Amino acid sequence: MANEKKMVEQITSMEEDFAKWYTDVVKKADLIDYSSVKGCMIIRPYGYAIWENIQKLLDARFKKTGVENVYMPMFIPESLLNKEKDHVQGFAPEVAWVTHGGSERLTERLCVRPTSETLFCEHYANIIKSYRDLPKLYNQWCSVVRWEKTTRPFLRSREFLWQEGHTMHATAEDAENETIQMLEVYAEFFEEDLGIPVLKGRKTDKEKFAGAKDTYTVEALMHDGKALQGGTSHNFGDGFAKAFDIKYLDKDNTLKYCHQTSWGVSTRIIGAIIMTHGDDSGLVLPPAIAPVQLVVIPCAQHKPGVIEKATEIFERVNKFARAKIDISDNSPGWKYAEYEMKGVPLRLEIGPRDIEANQCVLVRRDTREKKIVSLDSLETEIPALLADITKGLYNKAAENRKNRTYTETELDSFIETAKTKSGYIRAHWCGCEECELKLKELADVTSRCMPFDEQGEAGKCIVCGKPTDKLVYWGKAY
Amino acid sequence: MANEKKMVEQITSMEEDFAKWYTDVVKKADLIDYSSVKGCMIIRPYGYAIWENIQKLLDARFKKTGVENVYMPMFIPESLLNKEKDHVQGFAPEVAWVTHGGSERLTERLCVRPTSETLFCEHYANIIKSYRDLPKLYNQWCSVVRWEKTTRPFLRSREFLWQEGHTMHATAEDAENETIQMLEVYAEFFEEDLGIPVLKGRKTDKEKFAGAKDTYTVEALMHDGKALQGGTSHNFGDGFAKAFDIKYLDKDNTLKYCHQTSWGVSTRIIGAIIMTHGDDSGLVLPPAIAPVQLVVIPCAQHKPGVIEKATEIFERVNKFARAKIDISDNSPGWKYAEYEMKGVPLRLEIGPRDIEANQCVLVRRDTREKKIVSLDSLETEIPALLADITKGLYNKAAENRKNRTYTETELDSFIETAKTKSGYIRAHWCGCEECELKLKELADVTSRCMPFDEQGEAGKCIVCGKPTDKLVYWGKAY
Repeated sequence: MANEKKMVEQITSMEEDFAKWYTDVVKKADLIDYSSVKGCMIIRPYGYAIWENIQKLLDARFKKTGVENVYMPMFIPESLLNKEKDHVQGFAPEVAWVTHGGSERLTERLCVRPTSETLFCEHYANIIKSYRDLPKLYNQWCSVVRWEKTTRPFLRSREFLWQEGHTMHATAEDAENETIQMLEVYAEFFEEDLGIPVLKGRKTDKEKFAGAKDTYTVEALMHDGKALQGGTSHNFGDGFAKAFDIKYLDKDNTLKYCHQTSWGVSTRIIGAIIMTHGDDSGLVLPPAIAPVQLVVIPCAQHKPGVIEKATEIFERVNKFARAKIDISDNSPGWKYAEYEMKGVPLRLEIGPRDIEANQCVLVRRDTREKKIVSLDSLETEIPALLADITKGLYNKAAENRKNRTYTETELDSFIETAKTKSGYIRAHWCGCEECELKLKELADVTSRCMPFDEQGEAGKCIVCGKPTDKLVYWGKAY
Repeated sequence: MANEKKMVEQITSMEEDFAKWYTDVVKKADLIDYSSVKGCMIIRPYGYAIWENIQKLLDARFKKTGVENVYMPMFIPESLLNKEKDHVQGFAPEVAWVTHGGSERLTERLCVRPTSETLFCEHYANIIKSYRDLPKLYNQWCSVVRWEKTTRPFLRSREFLWQEGHTMHATAEDAENETIQMLEVYAEFFEEDLGIPVLKGRKTDKEKFAGAKDTYTVEALMHDGKALQGGTSHNFGDGFAKAFDIKYLDKDNTLKYCHQTSWGVSTRIIGAIIMTHGDDSGLVLPPAIAPVQLVVIPCAQHKPGVIEKATEIFERVNKFARAKIDISDNSPGWKYAEYEMKGVPLRLEIGPRDIEANQCVLVRRDTREKKIVSLDSLETEIPALLADITKGLYNKAAENRKNRTYTETELDSFIETAKTKSGYIRAHWCGCEECELKLKELADVTSRCMPFDEQGEAGKCIVCGKPTDKLVYWGKAY
């Protein structure tokens, strides 16, 4: 007899092997699968539903600032990629090249877009004539390709999904404002919707985007103390505009170069969610992006009236939350483990005695707290709990970051901390690349972020000792 | 002084040159732009907003039938593409090949997906074990590449956006039901949302999809009498399942092959909308997918109170329709032409005298009818008019199809009609490819569709004279 119930299998514990825990979770929670396409991933329905929710929330935030969506070709002719020097140097080593169409060799190679600055620039040069045409605030949702050597689901893969915003402005000031505005949009999304606290700040020159004047980042700290770049916003100044001859006729009747930004986040966000909130039972999803926010599980469902009542409740809840009911013949214990693995924020248990007492039990995924709730107050209790879960996730992650942030003023001590602890190390830095490389060599850390609100205080460079007011968060990164 | 107002330029008339009219419209309505990537198009904000609306409506229709979205890699290793013989023969001549990643030559070429049957099959073989796992109803929204020689915006381009559904079923009957169900979903979308009447039927073997057992189509007739395949739904039987070894353990404890379907529509739909409803003033958009459903245009806007009242009305209307207000300093006449070019379904004009009389003028894009409407009844009048526009578009297109459908029973007369008229030619056909090719040779037409509801009536093959009950719509196609 075929009776193959899917079992919730054990996953590696985080303490034992964080990397293994991570890959166990992405597989066991049915987020991804592998294929014969090396370095690429299949995003399965549960994983893709998370991405769809991320897209919906971010897209609405973008559009509120006036952004419009477009779609650019996925190919970039080699000569076009070569137009901006720094940019091509940054990306050429890691692009995939199309050399044949059907049976014919192409006269010019095409790369599969690793990012689309060059295509947007070519288009903007075409359509921008006057100051009346500015600003242009375009974005696209698409997939991009970077030929990585080592890959990990969501964190680093040869193809990934993202959005890339590309904007053009009349003045340097407008471009800078846009760059900062979009960084704020990302920060608010991470903190309000995902419950992930972020550092907002500038990247050092060494870490900035190929071709950018300034790169800003929202940086998140994972449970294991490694940093993850959550989203970046770049100010290009007029560098690309000069390379692509993007000029507008200003009010004063003179031709001026445009000022440009770009900004992006990718499916890495899903990796950040997993590694910030997850635990040894699997995923823990913030309600805003959870495909299922609440699962109804009837107890003693063979007893008369239980499934009917559970279904009635499911239908009620589904009007104001993304709900699901599981009336399969798996045991309640099996179901609890399954939806814990999948990170469903709330579980609603209801059995015969609950029904009699006109109540149910709500169990939080994040804290496992149980709350007995009257069936008359679901419409207020559930949204309140969901909001509270997001706050709880945020606070827990902020606490982890606080506990894993170390401040150092002496090099030896810095190196010792980098060796023995995992987290951010705050230290002053003189601003030169030599000292930055030295820290990489001695302590195996990179500069993650120069937070806006921690600059300007006097200190000494952790490497060379020069006085400086630049403060950097250093760490190991995904 | 810079005073470059964008002018609404003349477009070629449909009667003069339909192909030129088409490309004029896609450019002048700001739907697309060209780039240095030959054969690919840039979909501009106004064009992409139409696609976003199409996606939203179709995606909801899919999900109602239980479909889940996923994302597969964009690359297919050559050996994987080669697994199903008919399929690779159909697609290999028109794929783009990636041969290098960074500076290294790949050990195996990868094609950029022209369609993803092979990837879905590989994944399904991995995840389907038991009858409990069936059906699997997956879909993805993505871009695909086919290396076409001649291209036209939306109709035929080297890269285009589409959705591809791929489903697996326990029985042949389930697969056939799914194939038909998704064809119905397409037909309802075309007729209810886009106001485009379609023929629903089967493709001849010659015209079916590479590797399919049966291909069904929704076929639309354009304004100029050429046919356009709007969407297709394929039943693969167990052909791919055998090639990819996709088996499930049935209730009777035996291993069985799965039965498979796929179905897709693409950005061609936008081409169909343009060529079905458009006129010599530009686009005519069905309200369901129009980025702007109503534009408010104040008349004599310099007079006190006009802009304020127009803005108040815009805000009111925007609550139940996608509305826009244009208070730029362009003349009303310029604005009328601009929003006609862009196919905005309704225009709301309001001037000082209207305000005094507590009324406004609503002008339909499709018929140019004007209706004076009390400002107290906008909430009922506007939705009613929008619904009526969709019906009107449908009826007009159905009338065009009726006028352009010819029935022929003799070959000579068929050839004469094919030469002198443009539209569908209904004629019986014996079912053999030889006769089908003969018609192509003699009359330069292809079989478009064998409508489900016109089969079974006795007749004689238009070519060889054999008795048959198969009726085919023949024509020239985009």
